[in-house]
Amino acid sequence: MLVVMQSHAADSDVARVVEVIKAQGLTPHVMPGATRTAIGMTGNTGAVDQSLFEVLPGVEEAIRVTKPYKLASREMKRDDTTIALAQGAIGPGQFTVVAGPCSVESEAMILKTAEFLVSKGIKFLRAGAFKPRTSPYAFQGMGVEGLKILAKARERTGIAVVTELMDTEYASAVEEYADVIQIGTRNMQNFSLLKRVGKCRKPVLLKRGMSATLEEWLMAAEYVLAGGNYQVILCERGVRTFSDHSRNTLDLSVIPPAKALSHLPVFVDPSHGTGKRAYVPAMSLAALAAGADGIIVEAHPEPDKAMSDGAQSLDFAGLEKLTERLKSLAPAFGRAL
Amino acid sequence: MLVVMQSHAADSDVARVVEVIKAQGLTPHVMPGATRTAIGMTGNTGAVDQSLFEVLPGVEEAIRVTKPYKLASREMKRDDTTIALAQGAIGPGQFTVVAGPCSVESEAMILKTAEFLVSKGIKFLRAGAFKPRTSPYAFQGMGVEGLKILAKARERTGIAVVTELMDTEYASAVEEYADVIQIGTRNMQNFSLLKRVGKCRKPVLLKRGMSATLEEWLMAAEYVLAGGNYQVILCERGVRTFSDHSRNTLDLSVIPPAKALSHLPVFVDPSHGTGKRAYVPAMSLAALAAGADGIIVEAHPEPDKAMSDGAQSLDFAGLEKLTERLKSLAPAFGRAL
Amino acid sequence: MLVVMQSHAADSDVARVVEVIKAQGLTPHVMPGATRTAIGMTGNTGAVDQSLFEVLPGVEEAIRVTKPYKLASREMKRDDTTIALAQGAIGPGQFTVVAGPCSVESEAMILKTAEFLVSKGIKFLRAGAFKPRTSPYAFQGMGVEGLKILAKARERTGIAVVTELMDTEYASAVEEYADVIQIGTRNMQNFSLLKRVGKCRKPVLLKRGMSATLEEWLMAAEYVLAGGNYQVILCERGVRTFSDHSRNTLDLSVIPPAKALSHLPVFVDPSHGTGKRAYVPAMSLAALAAGADGIIVEAHPEPDKAMSDGAQSLDFAGLEKLTERLKSLAPAFGRAL
Amino acid sequence: MLVVMQSHAADSDVARVVEVIKAQGLTPHVMPGATRTAIGMTGNTGAVDQSLFEVLPGVEEAIRVTKPYKLASREMKRDDTTIALAQGAIGPGQFTVVAGPCSVESEAMILKTAEFLVSKGIKFLRAGAFKPRTSPYAFQGMGVEGLKILAKARERTGIAVVTELMDTEYASAVEEYADVIQIGTRNMQNFSLLKRVGKCRKPVLLKRGMSATLEEWLMAAEYVLAGGNYQVILCERGVRTFSDHSRNTLDLSVIPPAKALSHLPVFVDPSHGTGKRAYVPAMSLAALAAGADGIIVEAHPEPDKAMSDGAQSLDFAGLEKLTERLKSLAPAFGRAL
Repeated sequence: MLVVMQSHAADSDVARVVEVIKAQGLTPHVMPGATRTAIGMTGNTGAVDQSLFEVLPGVEEAIRVTKPYKLASREMKRDDTTIALAQGAIGPGQFTVVAGPCSVESEAMILKTAEFLVSKGIKFLRAGAFKPRTSPYAFQGMGVEGLKILAKARERTGIAVVTELMDTEYASAVEEYADVIQIGTRNMQNFSLLKRVGKCRKPVLLKRGMSATLEEWLMAAEYVLAGGNYQVILCERGVRTFSDHSRNTLDLSVIPPAKALSHLPVFVDPSHGTGKRAYVPAMSLAALAAGADGIIVEAHPEPDKAMSDGAQSLDFAGLEKLTERLKSLAPAFGRAL
Repeated sequence: MLVVMQSHAADSDVARVVEVIKAQGLTPHVMPGATRTAIGMTGNTGAVDQSLFEVLPGVEEAIRVTKPYKLASREMKRDDTTIALAQGAIGPGQFTVVAGPCSVESEAMILKTAEFLVSKGIKFLRAGAFKPRTSPYAFQGMGVEGLKILAKARERTGIAVVTELMDTEYASAVEEYADVIQIGTRNMQNFSLLKRVGKCRKPVLLKRGMSATLEEWLMAAEYVLAGGNYQVILCERGVRTFSDHSRNTLDLSVIPPAKALSHLPVFVDPSHGTGKRAYVPAMSLAALAAGADGIIVEAHPEPDKAMSDGAQSLDFAGLEKLTERLKSLAPAFGRAL
Repeated sequence: MLVVMQSHAADSDVARVVEVIKAQGLTPHVMPGATRTAIGMTGNTGAVDQSLFEVLPGVEEAIRVTKPYKLASREMKRDDTTIALAQGAIGPGQFTVVAGPCSVESEAMILKTAEFLVSKGIKFLRAGAFKPRTSPYAFQGMGVEGLKILAKARERTGIAVVTELMDTEYASAVEEYADVIQIGTRNMQNFSLLKRVGKCRKPVLLKRGMSATLEEWLMAAEYVLAGGNYQVILCERGVRTFSDHSRNTLDLSVIPPAKALSHLPVFVDPSHGTGKRAYVPAMSLAALAAGADGIIVEAHPEPDKAMSDGAQSLDFAGLEKLTERLKSLAPAFGRAL
Repeated sequence: MLVVMQSHAADSDVARVVEVIKAQGLTPHVMPGATRTAIGMTGNTGAVDQSLFEVLPGVEEAIRVTKPYKLASREMKRDDTTIALAQGAIGPGQFTVVAGPCSVESEAMILKTAEFLVSKGIKFLRAGAFKPRTSPYAFQGMGVEGLKILAKARERTGIAVVTELMDTEYASAVEEYADVIQIGTRNMQNFSLLKRVGKCRKPVLLKRGMSATLEEWLMAAEYVLAGGNYQVILCERGVRTFSDHSRNTLDLSVIPPAKALSHLPVFVDPSHGTGKRAYVPAMSLAALAAGADGIIVEAHPEPDKAMSDGAQSLDFAGLEKLTERLKSLAPAFGRAL
């Protein structure tokens, strides 16, 4: 259920609605909008009586939400969500480039990368301190030490840090050091982890599961939103199919329905999507054209020496070229880099 | 094996190479290029001796082709293939829009559609006279009568006709009436049909099979090329996956590798790819951005009354808007509509 | 619509119903049953008036068929279909083993194989004279000469011949020489071919398409049945998925719903399903346990020298062992080999 | 690397090898066998020198393990793994039935179910106290209270408890109350959780991920084994494909290669695999025939009133019938229920 307030409604009217929702044993979610405030509620197992709310002062209407995802749906929130960070906004009007190596390999390479990114106007650094690896014997990331290196890069350059959280154990650490908490594809339905980041006060970049339907993906976002963290970025990264020309099958066609059904920003990861550096630029441009709000792309000072995912990482020259291209094309799509 | 001639090689030198190839029991494929001619050969089961050719007058070099597809590969032909029709060229520098209804429903609607397309600068009409339908009880198309209606539309408006051939029985009829012969997704590995259109002298638009790998698709093209018909357009139309937000999963990520491995033009069908009209424009723009050479899109004067595929057909206003958008964006991708 | 006759209905009553169906512009399909005759009808685009038939003499009831496939459905025909051949019946109570090489390679190897099969009580020989090959340059089969070799094997040993038809051009030839006409996975939706074999009077073994849903498969069978050929055997042979431990993903779970929805026999091809000889026996036993009516399995006198599909072919010793195992297990599943 | 000891090797010889392995900074895994002990080692990033071990007393040979999974591979351990519980062994010679409701709904229903199972000779009860649910608003399980109910059922009836662990937070609780710890399909690559159960001293039933390859699945098992917990049961439960006749596509064809590549027991979950009660028995029999070591099947006293997964749950009569059928068939496959 969504309670839409009148445009002239007083704060006390909103407070009253919140109280009534709580009195029903439900959880209110206040969503201020450009012209009016709406208040979502979750937690009901059966139907809630609309008339309970429609008689309250300042209430315009109470609307039933028909989708299984509530807070993630456009029914609940009509306007695109903007996620504001010190480094810049993510969402409508923007096309955000997040770039960096697969994993934090050393302080030197992270600082070098961050400085390069900032010099090219890229404000978001990606790099994993915790790495989900298929093999228990593969490099598992530098851990908390890696997080500290990322924080140092932010101190030095002002860049925002996007990094993956793999488990609840390190949630506080990642929340402390990161600007955006990434949930990886293998954890898209790690519900305990989703609940945990629902309690964080940092934005969450939620990768689509390797074989997740759009509805399952939005439901995963709903776990985070229902916990009270309304800052979720969806990120398509390719799905598992029979197709073998690419590492995964990048499903750009999910962008229009994702944006039609949800108000959340949608990013694309062309690096994991293709698995091959040569195809990353074309897929990045296609992501922009398809309506994505940004990309998260692997770039490495020396891709051929990368400890992981070198084959899909751009080198700096390649990243610069791609960024220039995106910058020149973005306005045609109503966006700015 | 590919025999590359010197730039000053005489026609008689080429003829000599052709003879030597035939003498080996193989089939020569002469491919004139901008600066020099190359001669491919197919039919060998084992290795062919390069030195046989390298000693011939006018021969620059003989190159082994490593891919299982030969004539379709960039190894054999480095330059992008251009397919020249009276209505315009398909290939490098162009972005071709093919539009029209799923099926020929009546003369009136085809003429109306053709006139509209031509008035908007669209030079290719698609419409099926023969329809592959899941059910034997569904409308199977107007058949030869439909072909005649399409031919009439060309006479009246000058528009080029793209229409599907489903079986060898009607190959001559479709070849007679069509400007481009479409092979549908269900027939991508109908090898007898591929061999038949290899004998046609009209370009072939070859849709990717629903679960075809890129290599299988190029091998299917090879069947047509090996028959002597070098005018093949590849067309991605979505593949079968678990994903349920769209009718098929449009695999735009196949475009860059398809163009890297082959010289053939690559089109995209965003209508079958998504199954939903609302998502067709975004996927069309993404196709352009990803490097496609054109789109084939369903458009109908009254989509809601269409005998088939109405839900994925644009109406005329929608098509016009999309075409304008593509026209304004194409130059940024080195193409013209 | 299905018209069920009373058990005592006269032949003239049946003839009357057939006439009334034809008078409606529809096609009648008379299906004699153990205790009573039923008459299906196809060709209606809208609803047919039940009362038209229920007033006729000898009619028990007229039933609407709700599935999109009509003649293939259990609604239309409750009892399992038995396909009777000189060599034995296929269907309820039987577990049929069809075995042989991928392709007819020579007369000697086919005769040797047929003799071996017959000596082990196997009454159905499979071998392709026409081979659908991914590459135009690969061995395409011996063609009509191969068919003649197969016919010779039948003359000599009495074995029934199961062989693939790839196009309408050779339909008469294959119908003449084969006992069962196989339609391959790539042609499951080659509707022109399906219509053609609907006119044949030999049973059709219809392989499931590589990415066909159960409904599409039954609709493909419906094409054959609607043509008047009621002898169709469905054959699961593995579908395309991301899974890479086997050549295809053998979908044994399709057997119970296929048999629940349709009265047609269901076979399994464990050779193409797995792509590896070592896994064929386990999948054959599992097919029996899952309710299949038979298997079609590749066996070759010298698998390592096979011209195609050697890796998935059993040798004679392996086939004999498997057959013995199936023979001993079949009674526990209410079947006999 | 695997160090195989001579059959007469002394304990002190084994201890010496263990020491040398540790001295290399690696982790030894002592695996006693029927006739001789083998000692695996993990943790090496590069190659280890075989000669280091081959000169030690009591060492037969040192073998390089070529697969990326080491402890899970047959190269490392040739004999099938048996997992011994008080209630009975799981592994060679056995066919284990694990049955019970999707979730613990109340004490009464669990006790009723446990008593029924035990009365029918079924020694393993499955039921979830923690439920991974697509929606944050759906019933999430009874939690620790549910675990206590399960423990009570064991006290009363002696039945072994198989229940899911969703996160590291509740690892100790589940380890305390469960006899077998289940890792669900969505957590197959939750590497932090896998590492945690590697430290548990209870067997782990590891479901295959929805889109996991066989190698990824074995690598997930390797995470558990590498932690020192050698008691892992693999469990196939269906994978994500385009196919829509079943909830998932049950991949029985993974059983033979899983057992060829690994020594671990392989179970099948026909309930999630099909999603439909009616098809569970056929798939259970097929699992036995394909070589599985057991099934885990949903059964509920009143399936139509189940809080989750009712459509795929057998009722008690159905379970009893299936168990009887399995019991009578198992000996033909060298197994006993």
